[in-house]
Amino acid sequence: MNADITAHPHPKNDAFLAACEAVVGATNLITGDDMARYLTDWRGRFTGHARAVVRPADTAQVAAIVLSLARLNRIREVDPVNDTLTAEAGCLLQQVQDAAAAAGRLFPLSLASEGSCTLGGNLSTNAGGTAVLRYGNARELALGLEVVIADGRIWNGLRSLRKDNTGYDLRDLFIGAEGTLGIITAAVVKLFAQPAARVTALFALDAPPQALSLLALAKQRCDAALTGFELMSDICLQLVEKHFPQLRTPFNARHPQYVLLELSDAESDAHAASLLEAVASSAIEQGLVRDAVLASSLSQSAAMWALREHISMAQAAEGKNIKHDIAVPISRIADFIDETDALLQQAFPGCRMVSFGHLGDGNLHYNVSAPLGQDDQVFLQQQAAVNLIVHDQVHKFGGSISAEHGLGALKREEIRRYKSGTEMDMMMSIKRALDPLNLMNPGKVL
Amino acid sequence: MNADITAHPHPKNDAFLAACEAVVGATNLITGDDMARYLTDWRGRFTGHARAVVRPADTAQVAAIVLSLARLNRIREVDPVNDTLTAEAGCLLQQVQDAAAAAGRLFPLSLASEGSCTLGGNLSTNAGGTAVLRYGNARELALGLEVVIADGRIWNGLRSLRKDNTGYDLRDLFIGAEGTLGIITAAVVKLFAQPAARVTALFALDAPPQALSLLALAKQRCDAALTGFELMSDICLQLVEKHFPQLRTPFNARHPQYVLLELSDAESDAHAASLLEAVASSAIEQGLVRDAVLASSLSQSAAMWALREHISMAQAAEGKNIKHDIAVPISRIADFIDETDALLQQAFPGCRMVSFGHLGDGNLHYNVSAPLGQDDQVFLQQQAAVNLIVHDQVHKFGGSISAEHGLGALKREEIRRYKSGTEMDMMMSIKRALDPLNLMNPGKVL
Repeated sequence: MNADITAHPHPKNDAFLAACEAVVGATNLITGDDMARYLTDWRGRFTGHARAVVRPADTAQVAAIVLSLARLNRIREVDPVNDTLTAEAGCLLQQVQDAAAAAGRLFPLSLASEGSCTLGGNLSTNAGGTAVLRYGNARELALGLEVVIADGRIWNGLRSLRKDNTGYDLRDLFIGAEGTLGIITAAVVKLFAQPAARVTALFALDAPPQALSLLALAKQRCDAALTGFELMSDICLQLVEKHFPQLRTPFNARHPQYVLLELSDAESDAHAASLLEAVASSAIEQGLVRDAVLASSLSQSAAMWALREHISMAQAAEGKNIKHDIAVPISRIADFIDETDALLQQAFPGCRMVSFGHLGDGNLHYNVSAPLGQDDQVFLQQQAAVNLIVHDQVHKFGGSISAEHGLGALKREEIRRYKSGTEMDMMMSIKRALDPLNLMNPGKVL
Repeated sequence: MNADITAHPHPKNDAFLAACEAVVGATNLITGDDMARYLTDWRGRFTGHARAVVRPADTAQVAAIVLSLARLNRIREVDPVNDTLTAEAGCLLQQVQDAAAAAGRLFPLSLASEGSCTLGGNLSTNAGGTAVLRYGNARELALGLEVVIADGRIWNGLRSLRKDNTGYDLRDLFIGAEGTLGIITAAVVKLFAQPAARVTALFALDAPPQALSLLALAKQRCDAALTGFELMSDICLQLVEKHFPQLRTPFNARHPQYVLLELSDAESDAHAASLLEAVASSAIEQGLVRDAVLASSLSQSAAMWALREHISMAQAAEGKNIKHDIAVPISRIADFIDETDALLQQAFPGCRMVSFGHLGDGNLHYNVSAPLGQDDQVFLQQQAAVNLIVHDQVHKFGGSISAEHGLGALKREEIRRYKSGTEMDMMMSIKRALDPLNLMNPGKVL
């Protein structure tokens, strides 16, 4: 019975939890098995421990307790003239997108998980996604924050200004800090014009260097109208077709690489289509691409995006794999892939490279699957050795071992191999300055 | 003779200066009257004191001494495929622009002082300028930094990545810190496609609300092609015409307000012109503007920009004035101007509002000149009272009292009236964490 009390403390038996319950009410104090979904990451790698999960309803409640922010889910303001929206951290990303759209505006942050991830999480991890090429990461989309800091005070930094040079950039310090410096409770984000038209094309290519030339061509011709540029190797699309048979690559033959290109246009469908055709014609003339398919309807466009968006699920259906979320300078991607593929084949003959990603941002999901026929678990035992090869290569090429996924607990130790002591010291100084008692998300980042 | 030695210490008589000379050589150690131009700000408001000015040639030299960075003026790398450029802090802004252009790319940061200001200064003050609407402030244009920190170590944060989520955003902490956290010695900045065409129009309008409607129309029709949107009141252009008679407003009648609108287009002159004509036609149809002139040549376009760029000089030629570099949410600008103009007229009857600026960013140079006939010096004695009215209004409207000019020494005390204790405390904590001995640009910001 004692053990049971420890695992499922009743608020009445615990002064701290009773105090929490007094703040949020009994239904918003979660204990015991009901906590399970809060304590495990989605890949099942890490399991946390907690006495309770407390769900505050507003910033004042956050200032006192620790916490799920799911109830801080109000859109506080939409200002279409200032092109800003103020939302609480517990708002789902899709809710923010919808509120912007209802006012005739665009909130461009877009992720596969937008139906379940929250704005607070997006900001704490400086989320990327598919629209970074045009609109930037979460950091570039935020103008102001409201934060509960480690001493319990609330910082009202909810500015909705494009320009403010009155001191240190605290906003960008909290963004991407993964909750280790304070708790973001609300934010002012930027809105944009809804494009008049979106058009999509799929290109088949020989190899990454051609993809880079196509990227340069598209940037020159389209500038900010280029809103998506995703690279996918053939193995990625083969896995998609295997595990999601309703999805098919729209070419008659197989090709080594594919690029999904999206344009967003302020003018019209006709203008967007002619711009896309001009890019495709030039690419064919210059011999950059082997084949091209231009979506002629929204459903064709959606089918192209579905290929891209099902890669992760197809890969999971195929078996376990070793994932890397890396970025290198765009000009070095082709060399990085060549060299690193070769090193991995040498060390782990037959391993399968399931690499795809946001080529326009220099960001690849450079994932490695077991050789055909090898047991996943045997291959996963090599994970540390695989990571070492990939991440050492990333470092050599001036890259990042976590382009958009953060450090969390998984890469907290590994980053010390690649970041200078000077930088680690500065990060630690800032952590100590803003959270001297290490109360904020301990065990993450640092 | 003693006094003379104090004022002009000879390196040989001073161990510290002798050590500096040993590092940089005698010609790069400046003492006595030769220091004058380093010790006075351009408006002549503040004069500093120094034993010597030391001009290091590279980052290693910076790590030891204090310093003019004019000799750190190398473009280290231009990478047109990655769309990045690496330059040292002492490079002139124009030098950076030119190096980008020589590689067929655009570095969009643009200021009236680009021929004399340096990249290091631009980053330390998070400079704005005329292209913020499309490309962002200096902060949004930087990917990586090299910084000499307070303990003398060099932080190599010269990343050229669009995505890197591996810890705290130190980069954006140094940018805009006005040298108080460390010394930026080099940076990686973003490059963009050179537009195929740039077109310009001047619109005459009744009042700021019409300018805001025109802004919304232009953003909707042109999205990122809208690269300039500057508001100027009639008094601004009257002063320009008075003091620069070769410059003329291209309308037959006077109008209360004017907007200078610029589009940058990735396609062609013809496409840009047709887009601009469509915006102008809609604006006229909707009754937003009283008149419009579309530049039909580069020289006409340059003449329009000259009107905008001569306002500051015309104002200086007219006499002293009290300047405010403010930002408010764009949706509140019209109300801000109405209310604040009225409050100032009430307190200082006849004072002249010379307001103009980057309306597309919510940033106004909201300057106040003496009533006609009143002696400037008499009016300037009211400066504190004028500032109080303007800045209290800015605060009330959720704005910034320094949109793009920083705090420096001038606004260091005043900002305490408007920033919360929580924010000042966090800034101070960070300052102490990164510069515990207060060695870095003491007396500024905090």
